[in-house]
Amino acid sequence: MNDTKQEGWETIRFDGMSPTILDEEIATEFALTIVLNGEEFATMVCSPTDLQDLVVGFLASEGIIRFVEEIKDISLDESMGFAYVELYKNLDLMEQDHSKRVIGSCCGKSRQFYFKSDVRTSKTITSNLTLSVQQCYALMQQLQDGSDQFKRTGGVHNAGLATIHELLQVRTDIGRHNALDKIYGHILHNHISVKDKLIVFSGRISSEVLLKISKIGAGILLSKSAPTDLALKLAEDLGITVIGFARGDKMNVYTHPHRILETNV
Amino acid sequence: MNDTKQEGWETIRFDGMSPTILDEEIATEFALTIVLNGEEFATMVCSPTDLQDLVVGFLASEGIIRFVEEIKDISLDESMGFAYVELYKNLDLMEQDHSKRVIGSCCGKSRQFYFKSDVRTSKTITSNLTLSVQQCYALMQQLQDGSDQFKRTGGVHNAGLATIHELLQVRTDIGRHNALDKIYGHILHNHISVKDKLIVFSGRISSEVLLKISKIGAGILLSKSAPTDLALKLAEDLGITVIGFARGDKMNVYTHPHRILETNV
Repeated sequence: MNDTKQEGWETIRFDGMSPTILDEEIATEFALTIVLNGEEFATMVCSPTDLQDLVVGFLASEGIIRFVEEIKDISLDESMGFAYVELYKNLDLMEQDHSKRVIGSCCGKSRQFYFKSDVRTSKTITSNLTLSVQQCYALMQQLQDGSDQFKRTGGVHNAGLATIHELLQVRTDIGRHNALDKIYGHILHNHISVKDKLIVFSGRISSEVLLKISKIGAGILLSKSAPTDLALKLAEDLGITVIGFARGDKMNVYTHPHRILETNV
Repeated sequence: MNDTKQEGWETIRFDGMSPTILDEEIATEFALTIVLNGEEFATMVCSPTDLQDLVVGFLASEGIIRFVEEIKDISLDESMGFAYVELYKNLDLMEQDHSKRVIGSCCGKSRQFYFKSDVRTSKTITSNLTLSVQQCYALMQQLQDGSDQFKRTGGVHNAGLATIHELLQVRTDIGRHNALDKIYGHILHNHISVKDKLIVFSGRISSEVLLKISKIGAGILLSKSAPTDLALKLAEDLGITVIGFARGDKMNVYTHPHRILETNV
């Protein structure tokens, strides 16, 4: 488990009725337990890449930290699947809610966002960023071109940080929430301002995904996939432009279309 | 929130550069809190259909019940998003692990399966069911043909229970684990024997999905999507035939191929 390479798996591939035996590349599923100030905090299932970013982004998504400076130390034991995190503050306040949880591969388990109090504490985005439809198509194309692992294994999601001109960073995971947490961790680690940037994403847009975008502070989410109604209601409230089904030269703009130039004509 | 119809959302659809305003159907995301013997047990985000099946399947997936007869009463308050469940037994034993959890839309949060003890307690499947490649293609086609909601909203997963000849039941949810839990609940509610049946599924095959199949007791999982390496290792151990990437007239058989007739030639 301590390397990040994909493993081969002897697979019988049927094309019509005829079988061929192939050595298929399969996405790796890795269990990572975060130990926070000496106590087991959460276990998540993820792809074993960019684990520092994942841990930082996950802790920020969960509301445990807001800045990477709140972390005294992170050490990873990849062979055993542990991340040991020391914070400067102690954690008594949140013990009740956070003790010993197991988190599935696709799940960030953020706050109970559908309660009004959470919507109130989420940031409303006031970004002035605008871009053209053509720029949206080009960014989604860049995300897909860059996704070698998806092409090989079919089993991963991608989340990218982009300016309106280009994709700057992409993070990959078997879990779509983890891919976003990895980008969030990268942003926090490097103190990147997101005011002039957007998030480009391969996954479905649930309310939880939308709230992560709000916490990251991005004003635009561009995704290949479908939204839910609750995600769109939150996006409307929080000032986030949601674009879904961005495939080839087609896309749907669901909320705050003023950030897409061609909608203002 | 107390109806199950999809809502329309005013959407700007771009085809190339030209915008059209459409009233798009969007998948509903519904928060359901399960209150177990008077205590808040878990909150999940789901599609608001087949909620009785979802609750029963979820409790069985979590290891709280094994048979529907262990439930004294379930009452649903759909307008408030609550399911009140009374069990005959009391729950002191599991309070530690299960108190007040929030579960994302895509996440069943089953046991920490990657520990060896869980693999030991999972059932090894000894099903003698066999089917042809053509039957696999036909079943996946039936799953896709039946999925109107997916065609309309793009935002849902499907899990079906099938004989080798036909799809018997399909359950749909924005969360792939929920779709499986709904089928599991249906099986438990109706005391259906799964010995001669298989599960047909639209979603990715993670270790958590695979363990649900093991708990359901099915010997064959036929999916449209990709597996992870951990899921395949578990399937090998547990005696489950995993077929992935079943699309059109192509598919991959990863484990226990003896249940597919053409692999025995």
